[in-house]
Amino acid sequence: MGKIRVEVRYLPGVEDPEAITISRNLQILGYDSVGSVSVSKVYQFEIGNRENGMKQVNEVARKLLCNEVIQEYDIKEE
Amino acid sequence: MGKIRVEVRYLPGVEDPEAITISRNLQILGYDSVGSVSVSKVYQFEIGNRENGMKQVNEVARKLLCNEVIQEYDIKEE
Repeated sequence: MGKIRVEVRYLPGVEDPEAITISRNLQILGYDSVGSVSVSKVYQFEIGNRENGMKQVNEVARKLLCNEVIQEYDIKEE
Repeated sequence: MGKIRVEVRYLPGVEDPEAITISRNLQILGYDSVGSVSVSKVYQFEIGNRENGMKQVNEVARKLLCNEVIQEYDIKEE
């Protein structure tokens, strides 16, 4: 048993409306020490067999979790 | 200039419909080495002044990003 962590984020240069909204609203609320924001999503998978699990999580990340046109991901074992 | 990373996740024991759906569908699709899934969200802030930035990001995390009834967060400098 182990854990694998997949983090999916927007590619540099791709506009993220959620991040822009957070950043703008924090300025309005007076949080002046906080600059730009980026948002990403983390999926943590429990796996059984290490080798198969890694292979399958790689496939899941590439095919299902990440839209590689506008996003990138990285995978880490924990 | 520095970066601060806030990760928000559901408290243990709180049902996350998104994670349950992903996990169930991966089973249906035949990914049998992948067990339970948990999903969390990461906000990465660029800050100017380190001390003020940290203080403000702490406040933003507690008041705005995290619903402490069902979620928890941790903050890391990068």
